[in-house]
Amino acid sequence: MFPQFALQLPAWVEEFIGDPHKTYETIEERMALTIALSRLNVEKGTGGPFAAGVFDLTLKKLLAPGVNLVLHHNCSVLHAEMVALILAQKIIGHHDLGAGEGQAYELVTTTEPCAMCLGAVPWSGVARLVCGARDEDARSVGFEEGAKIENWVESLEERNITVVRDIQRQEAKAVLRLYAEGGGIIYNSEGQNAFRKRFSI
Amino acid sequence: MFPQFALQLPAWVEEFIGDPHKTYETIEERMALTIALSRLNVEKGTGGPFAAGVFDLTLKKLLAPGVNLVLHHNCSVLHAEMVALILAQKIIGHHDLGAGEGQAYELVTTTEPCAMCLGAVPWSGVARLVCGARDEDARSVGFEEGAKIENWVESLEERNITVVRDIQRQEAKAVLRLYAEGGGIIYNSEGQNAFRKRFSI
Repeated sequence: MFPQFALQLPAWVEEFIGDPHKTYETIEERMALTIALSRLNVEKGTGGPFAAGVFDLTLKKLLAPGVNLVLHHNCSVLHAEMVALILAQKIIGHHDLGAGEGQAYELVTTTEPCAMCLGAVPWSGVARLVCGARDEDARSVGFEEGAKIENWVESLEERNITVVRDIQRQEAKAVLRLYAEGGGIIYNSEGQNAFRKRFSI
Repeated sequence: MFPQFALQLPAWVEEFIGDPHKTYETIEERMALTIALSRLNVEKGTGGPFAAGVFDLTLKKLLAPGVNLVLHHNCSVLHAEMVALILAQKIIGHHDLGAGEGQAYELVTTTEPCAMCLGAVPWSGVARLVCGARDEDARSVGFEEGAKIENWVESLEERNITVVRDIQRQEAKAVLRLYAEGGGIIYNSEGQNAFRKRFSI
C-alpha cells in the first residue's frame, strides 16, 4: 500500500571520490572536495548546485558525501546536507553522530543551510558546521533559504556546534552561478510560485 | 563504498490503516487517525510518540502516513512529518505536492513541527498544516523543538500555507505523556546531553 523509499547516491559520486582511505587534513581540502561534488552534480545533471560531506575529525576522512537530489529522487527533503547526514548515520549505525566515545564529525556544506537543514543540524550530532557560500549568494541566483532565525550561528554555538563560514566562498558561489546561467531549474521558486497561484484554501 | 538508505514503514502501519480508499471527511477524523498512529508507534515500540499524515484534500483520503522512526532507522531526520512527506512525494512522483493542477494536500501532525520539520513544510508543497499538541507539550515531557522562528505560523501563512492548531490537543498530548511515563527514550535530549559533555572542539 505504501512504497519503500530508497536513497542512493549517483554512481559518479563514488567514482569521483575514489580511495575511501584518503585523508583530508585541512578544512580547505574538505571544502574543495565538497565544492567539486557540487560542480559535478550540475555537470552530470543529477541535481541542484549544492553538495555536502560528513567528515570524521579524528581520522580526517570522508564518512559520507551528499549532493542535492531533490529533482533526481522527486523528494524535497533531499538537500545535500540531509543526504550526507542520512548516509553518515546509516554508516555508523546510530541516529546521533555525537554518540560515539572520542569521535567527532564535521558537516561541510557548499552553501549555508536552509531553514530545514539548519534545523536538522542539532539533531544530527555533528560537532562542527563548515559553510562555503552565504545565504545571500543562494538567494542572488534565485534559491530560497526559508525562514531562518536571525542568530542561527549563535544558536548552533550555544549547542556546542562550532560554525565556520566563508571557506572558499567565491569558489562555492561560482557553482551557484554556473547552475543559474546554464538554465538550471530553481525548483524552490518554481514550486512556490506555482503554489501561490493555485491554492487559496 | 556508500550504502543505500531504505525507508520503510513498520508493517503494523498498513495493517492498522486497512482500506486505502477510506475517506476522512473532517479535520477531526484525519487527526484522530494520526493520533492513533502515534499511540501505536509507542505501543509497538517502533519509535517516538509522534505521527503525521499527508491527506488529499480533494479526495479526502490518506496519501501517506508517517511515524517517528528515528531510533527504528538510526536516522535523526526521520521525524514523523519527514516520513510522511518523503512517502507522499514518492507516491505522486514529484518533489512538490503543490505542483498538480487542482490538487491540494494537507500535512497533519500530532505535535507542532520542530525547527527541521517546519523548515521542510514550505519546500514540500503542502497547502495546509494541521497540528495537535503544541511545542510546549513536547517540551513538557522532555523533547526539544529546536530554534524555531517566533512567528512561524505567520511565516507559513505568508506562503499561503494555512495553519490549524490545537486539533485534539489533549488527546495528542496524552500520547506524549504515555511515552514519557513508559520510560521512552527522549532521544534528542539524550544526544544533546551526551554531546555537550563530550566535545569541546
